[in-house]
Amino acid sequence: MKEFNINPTDKSLKITLQQKINLKTKPLGALGKLEGLALQIGLVQASLKPVLNLPAVVVFAGDHGIALDGVTPYPQEVTYQMVMNFLSGGAGINVFARQNGMGVKVVDAGVNYDFGDLENLLRLKVNNGTRSFLKDEAMTLDELRDCMEKGSAVVNDLWSAGCNCIAFGEMGIGNTSSASMLMHYFTGINLTDCIGRGTGLDDQGLSNKTGILREAAKYHGEITDWTGIMKTFSGYEIAMMTGAMLQGAENKMIILLDGFIASTAYLGAYKLYPAIADYVVACHLSDEKGHRLLMEYLQLSPLLNLGMRLGEGTGAAIAYPIVKAAVNFLNEMASFESAGVSNKE
Amino acid sequence: MKEFNINPTDKSLKITLQQKINLKTKPLGALGKLEGLALQIGLVQASLKPVLNLPAVVVFAGDHGIALDGVTPYPQEVTYQMVMNFLSGGAGINVFARQNGMGVKVVDAGVNYDFGDLENLLRLKVNNGTRSFLKDEAMTLDELRDCMEKGSAVVNDLWSAGCNCIAFGEMGIGNTSSASMLMHYFTGINLTDCIGRGTGLDDQGLSNKTGILREAAKYHGEITDWTGIMKTFSGYEIAMMTGAMLQGAENKMIILLDGFIASTAYLGAYKLYPAIADYVVACHLSDEKGHRLLMEYLQLSPLLNLGMRLGEGTGAAIAYPIVKAAVNFLNEMASFESAGVSNKE
Repeated sequence: MKEFNINPTDKSLKITLQQKINLKTKPLGALGKLEGLALQIGLVQASLKPVLNLPAVVVFAGDHGIALDGVTPYPQEVTYQMVMNFLSGGAGINVFARQNGMGVKVVDAGVNYDFGDLENLLRLKVNNGTRSFLKDEAMTLDELRDCMEKGSAVVNDLWSAGCNCIAFGEMGIGNTSSASMLMHYFTGINLTDCIGRGTGLDDQGLSNKTGILREAAKYHGEITDWTGIMKTFSGYEIAMMTGAMLQGAENKMIILLDGFIASTAYLGAYKLYPAIADYVVACHLSDEKGHRLLMEYLQLSPLLNLGMRLGEGTGAAIAYPIVKAAVNFLNEMASFESAGVSNKE
Repeated sequence: MKEFNINPTDKSLKITLQQKINLKTKPLGALGKLEGLALQIGLVQASLKPVLNLPAVVVFAGDHGIALDGVTPYPQEVTYQMVMNFLSGGAGINVFARQNGMGVKVVDAGVNYDFGDLENLLRLKVNNGTRSFLKDEAMTLDELRDCMEKGSAVVNDLWSAGCNCIAFGEMGIGNTSSASMLMHYFTGINLTDCIGRGTGLDDQGLSNKTGILREAAKYHGEITDWTGIMKTFSGYEIAMMTGAMLQGAENKMIILLDGFIASTAYLGAYKLYPAIADYVVACHLSDEKGHRLLMEYLQLSPLLNLGMRLGEGTGAAIAYPIVKAAVNFLNEMASFESAGVSNKE
């Protein structure tokens, strides 16, 4: 498996950064979470004047064998159709990224469709969809390795072009099922607590999905090694995102963490390299059931809670202006001294 | 008192708007609060293609007699110093408004300082600070009328220039005390539950502030009429904001509601014209103690909860891109049909 060189951020600027934050023309702590963000980003960049350059969203798309086993009401073809929607600029992530000045890269990680030669699509297909993990491993060890390497390469390309702040989104009919299994196996949290309504299942649909995932867990039994969990339950888009996030942390980029599925990709990354936590900003709390518990497990406190559950990286794109605001106040706000404002008596 | 012509929004487009939202390429409801926002803004503008034009923040500044009675550790001069900071572009609100493409207007509603002729300062001073409400009414009836009219005029000027989305901020050392009294008298909520740490009081400071405000409540006793409550406890900047918000609703503008103090200005407006609720977007939950209860009382669910408590309209400016995102997805996202994406089976 590809190895990464990920270290905690250097904390030597921490006191100086905190002083800079405290001397801005505002009561101590009055910018709440923006202050913690400014500190974190300053430490990631080892700078008192951090800058966010060429922010981008990479959307990984992949299909899932489990989608054909009744866990979702959407047909699998929606995955490739949504990829076409991303490429033509009509999806949610396009709208929000465009609004907030973020670039969008779309990656075919393993969609069950032959796109041929399409401009702007990064063709990194590992296979035409995973196998169903109901009675099989979703991918081979070689495929998992391939995902990690390709995800890393995508990030390195963006990094070489000057990007230092990156969000990851996903598209893949059936991938909440994959994410629920990853969460359950990596965290030990009750499987039922990891399973949600995905694209909007009704009670019957949720009950079916839960039954199917319980059956899969029973079939595979205990798996404790990282590689075993990932190749059994991950999707190509999820594993590729894991590799991408790890490369982001190695490059000391700010990683904007989207919702439930992206968070299970992050969970995989965190299990291998816990130091990645210094580079990640949890952007939004998804309305998908397992996400709150997963955020608690990861000790992350998302910036937004807007009841969203769309995926694609939309939560990260919507949160980006807040991250930018943290950097901007650090760089642009006057200090008590520079503005001639009296501090507390 | 100036009268306003404020009506609930026309709901005749509601079903068509909701259909348009539902047919976007996303699972039903997957954009959470953005969907409710898109619906609200469409109804305010009576349009399936609403537009946010020339969004602006008006920051009203005023001084408070009560500030000299020990409720705050900051000297009163900070109010005018911060006004100078707003005018030179160095305050939090300047940074966030600039980032998000919002104009900033600064109004001297009643600062205890002679600014002389300053470019960009709207000189609408009612008086050099209110009287302390500890043993007096903060302002006269004529002054209250003056505030309402001037606030209305500021909004009409922006409206005439093409602005249809407006946020209001405030600056005034001591004004959380004024806001707490307004909240207590208008809602009947226990005074103690309306009082917070303001700019960051310690336990002793909070206890002093609470004692002083209790004394004021005891001195004035029961007041039940709107005018009586407003002239006794309001500040010039707060009352001017009340008039401004009412004019915004009359003009069918989107009103972006900031934190605790702005919310008490809104409370005053809402008590007179409850139909204003159709035009308001609660932007953030302030860390100031009374705000959560006040939001519940007003049945508002703020978009953000970032632990901020700076005032100036900063919460509204930080939330603005989310409001914009709601309008953008409604206008720009493809529908299942237009994108050729299959809907649920």
